[in-house]
Amino acid sequence: MSQIDTQTRSSLQDEVWGKIQAAKKTVRTLGVLSAEDKNRALQAMAESLWEQRDLIYRANQEDVQEARKSGTPEARIDRLTLTEKRLLDIMEGLKQVAGLPDPVGETLETIERPDGLWIEKVRVPFGVIAMIYESRPNVTVDAAGLALKTGNAVVLRGGSEALRSNQALVNALRDGLRKSKVPADAIQLIERTERESVDILIRAKGKVDLVIPRGGAGLIQRVVENSLVPVIETGVGNCHVYVDAKADLEMATAIVINAKTQRPSVCNAMETLLVHESVANDWLPSIIRSLRDRGVEVRGCERTRSILQDARAENVLPASVEDYATEFLDLILAVRVVDSLDAAIEHIETYGTRHSEAIVTTDSAAADRFLAEIDAAAVYHNASTRFTDGFEFGFGAEIGISTQKLHARGPMGLREMTSYKYIIKGSGQIRQ
Amino acid sequence: MSQIDTQTRSSLQDEVWGKIQAAKKTVRTLGVLSAEDKNRALQAMAESLWEQRDLIYRANQEDVQEARKSGTPEARIDRLTLTEKRLLDIMEGLKQVAGLPDPVGETLETIERPDGLWIEKVRVPFGVIAMIYESRPNVTVDAAGLALKTGNAVVLRGGSEALRSNQALVNALRDGLRKSKVPADAIQLIERTERESVDILIRAKGKVDLVIPRGGAGLIQRVVENSLVPVIETGVGNCHVYVDAKADLEMATAIVINAKTQRPSVCNAMETLLVHESVANDWLPSIIRSLRDRGVEVRGCERTRSILQDARAENVLPASVEDYATEFLDLILAVRVVDSLDAAIEHIETYGTRHSEAIVTTDSAAADRFLAEIDAAAVYHNASTRFTDGFEFGFGAEIGISTQKLHARGPMGLREMTSYKYIIKGSGQIRQ
Repeated sequence: MSQIDTQTRSSLQDEVWGKIQAAKKTVRTLGVLSAEDKNRALQAMAESLWEQRDLIYRANQEDVQEARKSGTPEARIDRLTLTEKRLLDIMEGLKQVAGLPDPVGETLETIERPDGLWIEKVRVPFGVIAMIYESRPNVTVDAAGLALKTGNAVVLRGGSEALRSNQALVNALRDGLRKSKVPADAIQLIERTERESVDILIRAKGKVDLVIPRGGAGLIQRVVENSLVPVIETGVGNCHVYVDAKADLEMATAIVINAKTQRPSVCNAMETLLVHESVANDWLPSIIRSLRDRGVEVRGCERTRSILQDARAENVLPASVEDYATEFLDLILAVRVVDSLDAAIEHIETYGTRHSEAIVTTDSAAADRFLAEIDAAAVYHNASTRFTDGFEFGFGAEIGISTQKLHARGPMGLREMTSYKYIIKGSGQIRQ
Repeated sequence: MSQIDTQTRSSLQDEVWGKIQAAKKTVRTLGVLSAEDKNRALQAMAESLWEQRDLIYRANQEDVQEARKSGTPEARIDRLTLTEKRLLDIMEGLKQVAGLPDPVGETLETIERPDGLWIEKVRVPFGVIAMIYESRPNVTVDAAGLALKTGNAVVLRGGSEALRSNQALVNALRDGLRKSKVPADAIQLIERTERESVDILIRAKGKVDLVIPRGGAGLIQRVVENSLVPVIETGVGNCHVYVDAKADLEMATAIVINAKTQRPSVCNAMETLLVHESVANDWLPSIIRSLRDRGVEVRGCERTRSILQDARAENVLPASVEDYATEFLDLILAVRVVDSLDAAIEHIETYGTRHSEAIVTTDSAAADRFLAEIDAAAVYHNASTRFTDGFEFGFGAEIGISTQKLHARGPMGLREMTSYKYIIKGSGQIRQ
């Protein structure tokens, strides 16, 4: 872990612990704020972003220039860039979050005991949430807004290439808070972007209540492996569509094209198509042609390749085991012919990442088995995997998509950013 | 981590991974079993324990003899010993679990989207749960029963001193399952008790879905620090009772005696008593006398000691900062006089472990502030902290008490041993 000298580490630790401590001091105030006060603060944050837009654009341009100089790929520069349109979208996001119901304080359950003890299970904030993410500066504002709405303080650790943008954004957000009842210290930005600042943050057990990493597989793995604080893992989606023997093939075509091509770079896009052998001969040549027309590179199993050969269709590359295990996040698709529903389930169990899995079939018994037996956050019958998303599920907001089973699974909205506690009211009860 | 040679590690890994794999193979079957089938299996497990009681007692006696030989303290030998009464209690526990409602399959929420997508949030098992615990052999049966009821496979890793007992118990449980529809492999016991077998188990990410450690602080810390699998942390309770300026002092006396002395060795017992200065002069001498009469060693702050001196009561030892931070689990109590509700809250925030905290007062504004601002799994007004327990909360069972905020907080019953997934039914919907 330690490739830096002791003095650097100690100054890093001072910065990170200092910011955590400042955030923690606001927790008691945040936890009992009214929904109105939080919503007004969200509005003030949005207004402050607009007031300070020139500072924000200037800082962002410096980040972009720096990134260009160091040869950053255009796609990443695009993600980094803040335009007026993007800033307006970010502000709109804050206003939408203000409009959502406040989950904090909700009574989840009441229990009355025979001895008169009255137990209430009540939704409460986590306390201090650490967000660790990469280059998109919009995450800075989104995460701060969602944390504040749910009564949590937030410590943000964005990527180094967006540092100046994040500083300008967080300055504006904190200035906004100064016009509200929410303490400005509820939002903290770690400005040291050495990798070790992440380690210090995720090992601050007892100081930080929850870590949410968002980004590539490497970042997430690093956080999961080193964190002492509970983590919600987000991200990797190696998703499948299984076209069953009794599929409506027109529907299958629409779903497969949508799941692969509508936005290939996201985690709920399909990466492998599984096709039952009884429809493979008739349907595979046409769907593969359609996919190729849309720029998709197809890698097929032996049977896929021989069917295409028999159909005198253009040949495809062979699919390897590694292809089955890969989240391409690109216009690449593995295709495998399977001889049964069981084989499809086995394949998904072996290679899937428990994210989003779909079956296309008119056979309700097959659908029921698939929906019951597939172990994934979201299992679909006759719909595209692309719907796994907080907005598409109607949550009104999303902090990420969990691929673990503890606490939150699938799209995480406001409720998933809360914990609960038991409030017990007595009249002198003691235990016998 | 590695103080064993490569060959030993590799054979250990084979054992641990083999058992995880065997458990994992049962997950799909377990997940779709009916409540009746699971309840019959629990009955069969109980019957099998009784049929094999002689084998179980013999194995347990060997464990006990071995423990005696190596000078194990009597309290631990007592925890290790299986008597007929204890075995009957364990069997009764399984039967009670059979009688509880099955949480699996419960629809937690339904969402209908404008485009006709029908989303159901449904409760599902985790999959494979690893239980890591110390000497009590009853945990072996309790954990297996609760896991099975909730459709989970379980990999048990008990302490070395109970190995023979655990082997006999697990043999009986698996033989019971062979007479049911539940695969015997749903219950696995790791029989290698080197510390490294724990490391292998908790680093089996993707193979194990959840780790629950139960035991002393050392075990729990080791698991939290090394696990790659999500953990539910259980255990440490440094709990407080705060007697407010407006407390009913008779009630306070009863609650304080109960919270400290009814069972001092458990996590929900009180460890520090906080007393508002306005009642300290009148009440402290009498409560301290009552506690001492019950064998409690009292360690007081400066003000406590001077009040006792003024009252010509027997003096008490001084309380150190370390005392405030200690979970004594014994008939020892720290006492501190505070000058306000805020000071009490500050003390609990500084030294508490977010487990169970109580206020005794007739002032409802003070109670409301305490209940809202104290960050703990269970916050009490006018009741003993000793009620933080799955049975006392009416859950009918308990796998432990969580001191983290992610997923489960406080007593964990059957529902806390489940996750959920989203089942989405469509008619060809694609994302625009």
